[in-house]
Amino acid sequence: MEKDKKVVLSGIRSTGNLHLGNYYGALSKFVRMQDDYDCRFFIADLHALTTNPDPKMLHESVKDILAEYIAAGLDPEKNILYVQSDVPEISEMYLLLNMHVGIGELMRTASFKDKARKALGITSDSDEIEKEIIGNQTNQRVNAGLLTYPTLMAVDILIHHADYVPVGKDQEQHLELTRRFARRFNSFYKVDYFGEPVNFNFGGEALKVPGLDGSGKMGKSEGNCIYLIDDEKTLRKKVMRAVTDEGPKEPNSVVSKPVENLFLLLDLVSGKEVADHYRQAYADCSIRYGDMKKQLAEDMLKVTLPIRERILDIRNNDEYLSKVVRNGAERARAYAADTLRDVREIMGIRKI
Amino acid sequence: MEKDKKVVLSGIRSTGNLHLGNYYGALSKFVRMQDDYDCRFFIADLHALTTNPDPKMLHESVKDILAEYIAAGLDPEKNILYVQSDVPEISEMYLLLNMHVGIGELMRTASFKDKARKALGITSDSDEIEKEIIGNQTNQRVNAGLLTYPTLMAVDILIHHADYVPVGKDQEQHLELTRRFARRFNSFYKVDYFGEPVNFNFGGEALKVPGLDGSGKMGKSEGNCIYLIDDEKTLRKKVMRAVTDEGPKEPNSVVSKPVENLFLLLDLVSGKEVADHYRQAYADCSIRYGDMKKQLAEDMLKVTLPIRERILDIRNNDEYLSKVVRNGAERARAYAADTLRDVREIMGIRKI
Repeated sequence: MEKDKKVVLSGIRSTGNLHLGNYYGALSKFVRMQDDYDCRFFIADLHALTTNPDPKMLHESVKDILAEYIAAGLDPEKNILYVQSDVPEISEMYLLLNMHVGIGELMRTASFKDKARKALGITSDSDEIEKEIIGNQTNQRVNAGLLTYPTLMAVDILIHHADYVPVGKDQEQHLELTRRFARRFNSFYKVDYFGEPVNFNFGGEALKVPGLDGSGKMGKSEGNCIYLIDDEKTLRKKVMRAVTDEGPKEPNSVVSKPVENLFLLLDLVSGKEVADHYRQAYADCSIRYGDMKKQLAEDMLKVTLPIRERILDIRNNDEYLSKVVRNGAERARAYAADTLRDVREIMGIRKI
Repeated sequence: MEKDKKVVLSGIRSTGNLHLGNYYGALSKFVRMQDDYDCRFFIADLHALTTNPDPKMLHESVKDILAEYIAAGLDPEKNILYVQSDVPEISEMYLLLNMHVGIGELMRTASFKDKARKALGITSDSDEIEKEIIGNQTNQRVNAGLLTYPTLMAVDILIHHADYVPVGKDQEQHLELTRRFARRFNSFYKVDYFGEPVNFNFGGEALKVPGLDGSGKMGKSEGNCIYLIDDEKTLRKKVMRAVTDEGPKEPNSVVSKPVENLFLLLDLVSGKEVADHYRQAYADCSIRYGDMKKQLAEDMLKVTLPIRERILDIRNNDEYLSKVVRNGAERARAYAADTLRDVREIMGIRKI
């Protein structure tokens, strides 16, 4: 059965706690995909190393992410859920693929240039960046791991022969490189081995989840963001402090951006009917922001509190987490080992 | 007992058949070290991939080298003799170490610049090379594997905590980088984990083995080189055609370079007494080059023919070769796995 399903791969980066934006923007979609696709999700701890994190923090954050994703609905039985560093075949194939990846194409990658620029404190957009990188003696953040990030990402994908990879705009160039590396490998060794993975758009437009500070989408800036792990008091406080406006002065006023954001959040957590009730109240000038915020907080808590409880449960259950990652690694390695065996054979690394 | 011995590591590159220069210059010294050091020798097939060799050739050459080294006296029981790609821990640590290796320092490595220059057909010595590398779109020989060669070499050494690494002049810069990476790792993670490996000079000056074409040392150019695998007829023919001169015109003439080379070869294969006999004959103008060459060929054959026979035996014994590399890999992996476990723990890649 499973072989008939398309393979979807996604890496989960350890960039702190999950918020409602992640939940509605990606995770709830992953959850809906679980039955229809052969989904493989990994926690990208090797990618995290490119920025030389504190070792203790790295370890803890892998556990955090794992707990939050499972709590939010990623089923470790339905999906293959694994930690990247638990699959040594990935590192082996990374070394092999580096032999066919040009230095020039890596150095021209937009995200590499951007990260190198930040690390070296260069503000201009000029080609000076290349000189700086080559001349740089001491800044460990401009390291070979960062440069070869596209190789590692390509291996993550190709080692599973993934069909679909849900990526945002910032990763599209890397996915294009993955396809290029796949074609190049096939062509150099005269094989028809790797397919070309494509972006996965969840069958629709990207959902925008607005934040609480009136500006734009939910992100990690102070006061803008509801984390799944927020307790009741914290969440209520954040919502009650959400930016609004002075209220409609006359009937059918144009809705201001901050208030529109709250309506959109109501759409998501309370449903269209409830949101429309407040839209109507805005139109006839009867709206009371305090009431609306109470409702929003109440309905957000209905979503987040059960997840929060599961996060706390899971995060403290080392035995369960350990079982999950062992099982995930075993299943991921079965696929990875097959691909690595083929790649080694094709490249001439054969057992005597 | 073994723990009291210093660890010596050397990689054997798959650059074709072994000749007498390799034998006297390095291999016979390795053989003498076997009892006094904890020697670990590996066939560097992953390094060979940086030049994208033909897969079939790569596989065959690994077997060739293995057979020739064992036939020439490397004892797989006394030493750990393994194929680099049989130790996946090396690839894993390579990825990890890349996170602490600067792109700038890699691009400034002399041997990288040299190889990139050759690949791109650049003859000048200028800094243009960096522009060319970055601008290069299609030449797979200027690849990320070539750039990160020093990372992989450092891993080869550090994963064994090697004390000594016998390297030639062309590899000294890489060994210096290895020490730098070791210090940097220790300092970044505030550990005292890696020692600093040093060059191993075999307790004396490098031995020069002259060639047959009158020029300089024995190398792979046509007519200059005796391979251990040469058969009797081939070897005799090569020696009889060795470059000499018109013979001494008067007593106590200065010996010409080509003839001096033959005297030095006699020193090596026939012994000082025999060589001095011909030196005397040169001094009193009684020397007959034909006789001397016959003697030289005869004594070379005494060295090479038994090795040649063993090479042929071993090269055709797949079962034996397979046993050797399996055993070597098992022993090498025991050390490599210990180091990798420590490095992962230090960097924060920990089992949940």
